[in-house]
Amino acid sequence: MQTAESLERLKSLLMKLPGVGRRSADRMAVAIARNRDGYLEQLAGTIQQVGREIVCCRDCGSLTDREENPCRLCSDPRRDDALLCVVEDPGDIDVIERSGLYRGRYFALMGKLAPVRGETPQSLRLQALWRRASGEAVREIILALNSDVESDATAHYLAEQLSGRPVKITRLARGIPAGSGLAYADPVTLEAALKHRTGFL
Amino acid sequence: MQTAESLERLKSLLMKLPGVGRRSADRMAVAIARNRDGYLEQLAGTIQQVGREIVCCRDCGSLTDREENPCRLCSDPRRDDALLCVVEDPGDIDVIERSGLYRGRYFALMGKLAPVRGETPQSLRLQALWRRASGEAVREIILALNSDVESDATAHYLAEQLSGRPVKITRLARGIPAGSGLAYADPVTLEAALKHRTGFL
Repeated sequence: MQTAESLERLKSLLMKLPGVGRRSADRMAVAIARNRDGYLEQLAGTIQQVGREIVCCRDCGSLTDREENPCRLCSDPRRDDALLCVVEDPGDIDVIERSGLYRGRYFALMGKLAPVRGETPQSLRLQALWRRASGEAVREIILALNSDVESDATAHYLAEQLSGRPVKITRLARGIPAGSGLAYADPVTLEAALKHRTGFL
Repeated sequence: MQTAESLERLKSLLMKLPGVGRRSADRMAVAIARNRDGYLEQLAGTIQQVGREIVCCRDCGSLTDREENPCRLCSDPRRDDALLCVVEDPGDIDVIERSGLYRGRYFALMGKLAPVRGETPQSLRLQALWRRASGEAVREIILALNSDVESDATAHYLAEQLSGRPVKITRLARGIPAGSGLAYADPVTLEAALKHRTGFL
Protein backbone atom coordinates (compact mmCIF):
# COMPACT_ATOMS: atom_id res chain seq x y z
CA MET A 1 0.00 0.00 0.00
CA GLN A 2 1.36 3.39 -0.90
CA THR A 3 0.47 6.20 1.39
CA ALA A 4 0.61 9.86 0.61
CA GLU A 5 1.75 12.41 3.14
CA SER A 6 -1.86 13.44 3.81
CA LEU A 7 -2.81 9.91 4.87
CA GLU A 8 0.16 9.78 7.27
CA ARG A 9 -0.89 13.13 8.71
CA LEU A 10 -4.46 11.85 9.18
CA LYS A 11 -3.06 8.88 11.14
CA SER A 12 -1.01 11.21 13.35
CA LEU A 13 -4.04 13.40 14.04
CA LEU A 14 -6.24 10.40 14.87
CA MET A 15 -3.58 9.17 17.32
CA LYS A 16 -4.07 12.36 19.32
CA LEU A 17 -7.64 11.32 20.14
CA PRO A 18 -8.18 9.64 23.51
CA GLY A 19 -7.73 5.87 23.45
CA VAL A 20 -6.47 5.73 19.84
CA GLY A 21 -3.13 3.96 19.34
CA ARG A 22 -0.99 3.36 16.26
CA ARG A 23 -2.89 0.31 14.99
CA SER A 24 -6.37 1.77 15.61
CA ALA A 25 -5.35 4.99 13.86
CA ASP A 26 -4.11 2.98 10.85
CA ARG A 27 -7.38 1.06 10.55
CA MET A 28 -9.48 4.17 11.05
CA ALA A 29 -7.51 6.15 8.44
CA VAL A 30 -7.88 3.36 5.89
CA ALA A 31 -11.64 3.17 6.56
CA ILE A 32 -11.93 6.94 6.12
CA ALA A 33 -9.80 6.97 2.95
CA ARG A 34 -11.83 4.15 1.37
CA ASN A 35 -14.73 6.60 1.45
CA ARG A 36 -17.48 4.01 1.16
CA ASP A 37 -20.87 5.63 0.38
CA GLY A 38 -19.43 9.14 0.72
CA TYR A 39 -18.38 8.55 4.35
CA LEU A 40 -15.29 10.78 4.08
CA GLU A 41 -17.23 13.86 2.97
CA GLN A 42 -19.90 13.27 5.64
CA LEU A 43 -17.26 13.00 8.36
CA ALA A 44 -15.32 16.09 7.26
CA GLY A 45 -18.53 18.09 6.87
CA THR A 46 -19.88 17.04 10.27
CA ILE A 47 -16.60 17.89 12.01
CA GLN A 48 -16.71 21.36 10.44
CA GLN A 49 -20.36 21.76 11.49
CA VAL A 50 -19.43 20.79 15.06
CA GLY A 51 -16.70 23.44 14.85
CA ARG A 52 -19.27 26.06 13.83
CA GLU A 53 -22.03 25.04 16.28
CA ILE A 54 -20.38 23.68 19.43
CA VAL A 55 -18.35 25.73 21.90
CA CYS A 56 -17.13 25.28 25.45
CA CYS A 57 -19.52 26.91 27.94
CA ARG A 58 -17.91 30.10 29.21
CA ASP A 59 -18.86 29.23 32.79
CA CYS A 60 -18.46 25.48 33.35
CA GLY A 61 -16.37 24.64 30.28
CA SER A 62 -18.55 21.78 29.05
CA LEU A 63 -19.68 21.55 25.44
CA THR A 64 -22.77 23.51 24.46
CA ASP A 65 -24.47 25.08 21.45
CA ARG A 66 -22.92 28.36 20.36
CA GLU A 67 -26.44 29.84 20.74
CA GLU A 68 -26.74 28.59 24.33
CA ASN A 69 -23.71 29.96 26.15
CA PRO A 70 -23.60 29.76 29.17
CA CYS A 71 -24.97 26.25 28.89
CA ARG A 72 -28.35 24.98 30.07
CA LEU A 73 -26.99 23.83 33.46
CA CYS A 74 -25.15 27.09 34.11
CA SER A 75 -28.15 29.26 33.18
CA ASP A 76 -30.81 27.18 34.97
CA PRO A 77 -32.18 29.55 37.67
CA ARG A 78 -33.37 26.63 39.84
CA ARG A 79 -29.84 25.40 40.56
CA ASP A 80 -27.96 26.32 43.73
CA ASP A 81 -25.25 28.93 43.12
CA ALA A 82 -23.76 28.28 46.58
CA LEU A 83 -22.37 24.89 45.50
CA LEU A 84 -19.65 24.54 42.87
CA CYS A 85 -18.64 21.04 41.83
CA VAL A 86 -15.18 20.91 40.18
CA VAL A 87 -14.57 17.99 37.80
CA GLU A 88 -11.70 17.08 35.47
CA ASP A 89 -13.62 16.53 32.24
CA PRO A 90 -17.01 17.70 30.91
CA GLY A 91 -18.03 14.02 30.65
CA ASP A 92 -17.84 13.78 34.45
CA ILE A 93 -20.64 16.35 34.66
CA ASP A 94 -22.90 13.88 32.83
CA VAL A 95 -21.97 11.16 35.31
CA ILE A 96 -23.00 13.28 38.30
CA GLU A 97 -26.12 14.62 36.53
CA ARG A 98 -27.29 11.10 35.77
CA SER A 99 -27.28 10.35 39.51
CA GLY A 100 -29.86 13.13 39.95
CA LEU A 101 -28.38 13.82 43.41
CA TYR A 102 -26.71 17.19 42.83
CA ARG A 103 -28.43 20.51 42.20
CA GLY A 104 -25.49 22.97 42.35
CA ARG A 105 -23.26 24.35 39.61
CA TYR A 106 -20.35 22.71 37.78
CA PHE A 107 -16.86 23.64 36.67
CA ALA A 108 -14.69 21.48 34.38
CA LEU A 109 -10.91 21.90 34.70
CA MET A 110 -10.32 20.27 31.30
CA GLY A 111 -7.75 17.85 32.62
CA LYS A 112 -5.50 17.46 35.61
CA LEU A 113 -1.95 18.39 36.51
CA ALA A 114 0.46 15.90 34.96
CA PRO A 115 3.85 17.56 34.48
CA VAL A 116 5.33 14.47 32.79
CA ARG A 117 2.75 14.84 30.00
CA GLY A 118 3.20 18.60 29.82
CA GLU A 119 -0.07 19.31 31.69
CA THR A 120 0.88 22.26 33.89
CA PRO A 121 -1.37 24.72 35.76
CA GLN A 122 -1.41 26.74 32.51
CA SER A 123 -3.21 23.89 30.68
CA LEU A 124 -6.18 23.97 33.08
CA ARG A 125 -8.93 26.60 33.39
CA LEU A 126 -7.51 27.88 36.66
CA GLN A 127 -7.94 31.63 36.14
CA ALA A 128 -11.64 31.03 35.47
CA LEU A 129 -11.85 28.87 38.60
CA TRP A 130 -10.25 31.54 40.80
CA ARG A 131 -12.79 34.04 39.42
CA ARG A 132 -15.70 31.68 40.10
CA ALA A 133 -14.41 30.96 43.61
CA SER A 134 -14.19 34.68 44.34
CA GLY A 135 -17.84 35.24 43.37
CA GLU A 136 -20.13 36.15 46.23
CA ALA A 137 -22.55 33.28 45.73
CA VAL A 138 -20.16 30.30 46.14
CA ARG A 139 -20.07 28.85 49.69
CA GLU A 140 -18.68 25.38 49.03
CA ILE A 141 -16.38 23.97 46.37
CA ILE A 142 -16.64 20.21 45.98
CA LEU A 143 -13.50 18.72 44.39
CA ALA A 144 -14.99 15.78 42.45
CA LEU A 145 -11.77 14.68 40.75
CA ASN A 146 -10.74 11.12 40.03
CA SER A 147 -8.81 9.19 42.66
CA ASP A 148 -5.49 8.41 40.99
CA VAL A 149 -2.17 9.96 42.03
CA GLU A 150 -2.22 12.80 39.47
CA SER A 151 -5.83 13.70 40.33
CA ASP A 152 -5.01 13.68 44.05
CA ALA A 153 -2.05 15.99 43.45
CA THR A 154 -4.32 18.28 41.42
CA ALA A 155 -6.92 18.32 44.22
CA HIS A 156 -4.25 19.22 46.77
CA TYR A 157 -2.94 21.99 44.53
CA LEU A 158 -6.46 23.41 44.10
CA ALA A 159 -7.25 23.18 47.84
CA GLU A 160 -4.01 25.02 48.64
CA GLN A 161 -4.63 27.77 46.09
CA LEU A 162 -8.25 28.19 47.19
CA SER A 163 -7.46 28.32 50.92
CA GLY A 164 -7.80 31.75 52.49
CA ARG A 165 -11.07 32.41 50.67
CA PRO A 166 -14.32 32.33 52.69
CA VAL A 167 -15.30 29.12 50.91
CA LYS A 168 -15.54 25.59 52.28
CA ILE A 169 -13.47 23.06 50.27
CA THR A 170 -14.70 19.45 50.29
CA ARG A 171 -14.02 16.34 48.26
CA LEU A 172 -15.94 13.16 47.48
CA ALA A 173 -15.80 10.47 50.18
CA ARG A 174 -13.33 7.58 49.77
CA GLY A 175 -14.43 4.12 50.79
CA ILE A 176 -15.48 0.65 49.74
CA PRO A 177 -17.62 0.91 46.56
CA ALA A 178 -21.11 -0.58 46.78
CA GLY A 179 -21.36 -4.15 45.54
CA SER A 180 -17.66 -4.84 46.06
CA GLY A 181 -15.78 -7.17 48.40
CA LEU A 182 -13.31 -6.14 51.12
CA ALA A 183 -10.80 -8.51 49.54
CA TYR A 184 -10.62 -6.24 46.50
CA ALA A 185 -9.99 -3.02 48.45
CA ASP A 186 -6.47 -1.60 48.18
CA PRO A 187 -4.75 -0.44 51.41
CA VAL A 188 -5.36 3.27 50.72
CA THR A 189 -9.09 2.74 50.18
CA LEU A 190 -9.33 0.53 53.25
CA GLU A 191 -7.53 3.11 55.35
CA ALA A 192 -9.98 5.82 54.18
CA ALA A 193 -12.97 3.53 54.81
CA LEU A 194 -11.81 2.79 58.37
CA LYS A 195 -10.84 6.36 59.17
CA HIS A 196 -14.12 7.83 57.96
CA ARG A 197 -16.39 5.01 59.16
CA THR A 198 -19.97 6.13 59.80
CA GLY A 199 -22.57 5.21 62.44
CA PHE A 200 -24.71 2.18 61.56
CA LEU A 201 -28.33 3.31 61.08
CA MET B 1 -23.43 18.65 28.90
CA GLN B 2 -25.77 19.80 26.14
CA THR B 3 -25.16 18.32 22.76
CA ALA B 4 -26.33 19.70 19.47
CA GLU B 5 -27.53 17.45 16.72
CA SER B 6 -24.22 17.86 14.86
CA LEU B 7 -22.25 16.45 17.81
CA GLU B 8 -24.57 13.43 17.97
CA ARG B 9 -24.11 12.89 14.25
CA LEU B 10 -20.31 13.08 14.68
CA LYS B 11 -20.52 10.35 17.35
CA SER B 12 -22.60 8.14 15.04
CA LEU B 13 -20.12 8.59 12.20
CA LEU B 14 -17.14 7.81 14.46
CA MET B 15 -18.90 4.62 15.61
CA LYS B 16 -18.82 3.38 12.02
CA LEU B 17 -15.00 3.27 12.13
CA PRO B 18 -13.42 -0.12 12.88
CA GLY B 19 -12.98 -0.80 16.59
CA VAL B 20 -14.82 2.32 17.77
CA GLY B 21 -17.68 1.70 20.22
CA ARG B 22 -20.18 4.03 21.90
CA ARG B 23 -17.88 5.18 24.72
CA SER B 24 -14.80 5.68 22.52
CA ALA B 25 -16.90 7.65 20.02
CA ASP B 26 -18.17 9.89 22.85
CA ARG B 27 -14.68 10.63 24.12
CA MET B 28 -13.31 11.18 20.61
CA ALA B 29 -16.18 13.54 19.69
CA VAL B 30 -15.65 15.60 22.85
CA ALA B 31 -11.91 15.83 22.15
CA ILE B 32 -12.62 16.96 18.58
CA ALA B 33 -15.28 19.49 19.66
CA ARG B 34 -12.98 21.00 22.31
CA ASN B 35 -10.81 22.01 19.38
CA ARG B 36 -7.62 22.52 21.37
CA ASP B 37 -4.94 24.37 19.34
CA GLY B 38 -7.09 24.28 16.19
CA TYR B 39 -7.23 20.46 16.16
CA LEU B 40 -10.74 20.37 14.69
CA GLU B 41 -9.87 22.42 11.61
CA GLN B 42 -6.67 20.42 11.07
CA LEU B 43 -8.58 17.13 11.25
CA ALA B 44 -11.39 18.24 8.93
CA GLY B 45 -8.89 19.73 6.46
CA THR B 46 -6.69 16.63 6.45
CA ILE B 47 -9.67 14.33 5.89
CA GLN B 48 -10.70 16.44 2.90
CA GLN B 49 -7.13 16.40 1.59
CA VAL B 50 -7.08 12.60 1.89
CA GLY B 51 -10.34 12.59 -0.06
CA ARG B 52 -8.73 14.65 -2.84
CA GLU B 53 -5.38 12.81 -2.94
CA ILE B 54 -6.01 9.16 -2.03
CA VAL B 55 -7.93 6.67 -4.14
CA CYS B 56 -8.27 2.90 -4.26
CA CYS B 57 -5.90 1.37 -6.82
CA ARG B 58 -7.92 0.34 -9.85
CA ASP B 59 -6.12 -3.01 -9.99
CA CYS B 60 -5.50 -4.29 -6.45
CA GLY B 61 -7.90 -2.00 -4.56
CA SER B 62 -5.38 -0.79 -1.99
CA LEU B 63 -4.96 2.88 -1.18
CA THR B 64 -2.69 4.90 -3.42
CA ASP B 65 -2.03 8.45 -4.59
CA ARG B 66 -4.51 9.70 -7.18
CA GLU B 67 -1.43 10.42 -9.36
CA GLU B 68 -0.14 6.86 -9.03
CA ASN B 69 -2.99 4.63 -10.15
CA PRO B 70 -2.45 1.66 -10.63
CA CYS B 71 -0.36 1.66 -7.45
CA ARG B 72 3.38 1.12 -7.15
CA LEU B 73 3.03 -2.65 -6.55
CA CYS B 74 0.64 -3.14 -9.48
CA SER B 75 2.79 -1.15 -11.90
CA ASP B 76 6.16 -2.59 -10.82
CA PRO B 77 7.45 -4.43 -13.95
CA ARG B 78 9.69 -6.72 -11.84
CA ARG B 79 6.76 -8.46 -10.16
CA ASP B 80 5.36 -11.78 -11.40
CA ASP B 81 2.05 -11.40 -13.26
CA ALA B 82 1.46 -15.16 -13.11
CA LEU B 83 0.75 -15.07 -9.36
CA LEU B 84 -2.28 -13.25 -7.90
CA CYS B 85 -2.62 -13.12 -4.13
CA VAL B 86 -6.21 -12.39 -2.99
CA VAL B 87 -6.57 -10.79 0.46
CA GLU B 88 -9.54 -9.40 2.38
CA ASP B 89 -8.22 -5.94 3.27
CA PRO B 90 -5.53 -3.68 1.78
CA GLY B 91 -3.75 -3.82 5.17
CA ASP B 92 -3.12 -7.54 4.59
CA ILE B 93 -1.01 -6.62 1.55
CA ASP B 94 1.37 -4.75 3.89
CA VAL B 95 1.61 -7.82 6.12
CA ILE B 96 2.67 -10.06 3.22
CA GLU B 97 4.96 -7.38 1.73
CA ARG B 98 6.78 -6.99 5.04
CA SER B 99 7.67 -10.71 4.92
CA GLY B 100 9.56 -10.02 1.68
CA LEU B 101 8.65 -13.55 0.53
CA TYR B 102 6.17 -12.82 -2.25
CA ARG B 103 6.90 -11.23 -5.63
CA GLY B 104 3.55 -11.64 -7.41
CA ARG B 105 0.54 -9.31 -7.69
CA TYR B 106 -2.18 -8.56 -5.18
CA PHE B 107 -5.94 -8.18 -5.14
CA ALA B 108 -7.95 -6.88 -2.14
CA LEU B 109 -11.58 -8.02 -1.92
CA MET B 110 -12.43 -5.19 0.52
CA GLY B 111 -14.03 -7.50 3.05
CA LYS B 112 -15.50 -10.96 3.17
CA LEU B 113 -18.92 -12.53 2.77
CA ALA B 114 -20.93 -12.04 5.96
CA PRO B 115 -24.65 -12.11 5.12
CA VAL B 116 -25.66 -11.39 8.74
CA ARG B 117 -23.85 -8.05 8.51
CA GLY B 118 -25.20 -7.33 5.02
CA GLU B 119 -21.88 -8.21 3.32
CA THR B 120 -23.05 -10.02 0.19
CA PRO B 121 -21.12 -10.82 -3.02
CA GLN B 122 -22.21 -7.36 -4.22
CA SER B 123 -20.18 -5.67 -1.44
CA LEU B 124 -16.92 -7.24 -2.62
CA ARG B 125 -14.84 -6.41 -5.71
CA LEU B 126 -15.84 -9.66 -7.41
CA GLN B 127 -16.43 -8.40 -10.97
CA ALA B 128 -12.90 -6.97 -10.93
CA LEU B 129 -11.56 -10.29 -9.60
CA TRP B 130 -13.28 -12.32 -12.34
CA ARG B 131 -11.74 -9.94 -14.92
CA ARG B 132 -8.27 -10.32 -13.37
CA ALA B 133 -8.64 -14.10 -13.21
CA SER B 134 -9.59 -14.20 -16.90
CA GLY B 135 -6.45 -12.31 -17.90
CA GLU B 136 -3.92 -14.31 -19.86
CA ALA B 137 -1.05 -13.79 -17.46
CA VAL B 138 -2.51 -15.27 -14.26
CA ARG B 139 -1.56 -18.92 -13.65
CA GLU B 140 -2.20 -19.23 -9.91
CA ILE B 141 -4.58 -17.49 -7.54
CA ILE B 142 -3.52 -17.72 -3.89
CA LEU B 143 -6.46 -17.21 -1.52
CA ALA B 144 -4.73 -15.52 1.43
CA LEU B 145 -7.87 -14.87 3.47
CA ASN B 146 -8.15 -15.02 7.25
CA SER B 147 -9.02 -18.34 8.87
CA ASP B 148 -12.34 -17.68 10.63
CA VAL B 149 -15.65 -19.20 9.53
CA GLU B 150 -16.76 -16.27 7.38
CA SER B 151 -13.38 -16.06 5.64
CA ASP B 152 -13.42 -19.80 4.99
CA ALA B 153 -16.91 -19.53 3.48
CA THR B 154 -15.68 -16.66 1.32
CA ALA B 155 -12.67 -18.69 0.15
CA HIS B 156 -14.93 -21.62 -0.78
CA TYR B 157 -17.27 -19.30 -2.68
CA LEU B 158 -14.33 -17.81 -4.60
CA ALA B 159 -12.80 -21.22 -5.37
CA GLU B 160 -16.16 -22.43 -6.70
CA GLN B 161 -16.72 -19.37 -8.86
CA LEU B 162 -13.15 -19.47 -10.20
CA SER B 163 -13.20 -23.19 -11.02
CA GLY B 164 -13.38 -24.04 -14.72
CA ARG B 165 -10.79 -21.38 -15.55
CA PRO B 166 -7.28 -22.55 -16.55
CA VAL B 167 -5.94 -21.20 -13.27
CA LYS B 168 -4.61 -23.06 -10.24
CA ILE B 169 -6.38 -22.08 -6.99
CA THR B 170 -4.36 -22.43 -3.78
CA ARG B 171 -4.66 -21.20 -0.24
CA LEU B 172 -2.21 -20.55 2.61
CA ALA B 173 -1.18 -23.63 4.62
CA ARG B 174 -2.93 -24.33 7.92
CA GLY B 175 -0.88 -25.63 10.81
CA ILE B 176 0.76 -24.96 14.14
CA PRO B 177 2.10 -21.38 14.20
CA ALA B 178 5.82 -21.02 14.90
CA GLY B 179 6.65 -20.39 18.55
CA SER B 180 3.39 -21.90 19.79
CA GLY B 181 2.62 -25.03 21.83
CA LEU B 182 0.58 -28.02 20.73
CA ALA B 183 -1.56 -27.54 23.83
CA TYR B 184 -2.88 -24.29 22.37
CA ALA B 185 -3.85 -25.75 18.99
CA ASP B 186 -7.60 -26.09 18.37
CA PRO B 187 -8.84 -29.39 16.85
CA VAL B 188 -9.30 -27.94 13.36
CA THR B 189 -5.74 -26.57 13.27
CA LEU B 190 -4.36 -29.85 14.65
CA GLU B 191 -6.27 -31.85 12.04
CA ALA B 192 -4.81 -29.66 9.27
CA ALA B 193 -1.32 -29.91 10.76
CA LEU B 194 -1.51 -33.72 10.86
CA LYS B 195 -3.13 -34.14 7.45
CA HIS B 196 -0.60 -31.89 5.70
CA ARG B 197 2.45 -32.97 7.68
CA THR B 198 5.72 -32.53 5.79
CA GLY B 199 8.93 -34.58 5.57
CA PHE B 200 11.52 -33.76 8.24
CA LEU B 201 14.60 -32.19 6.59
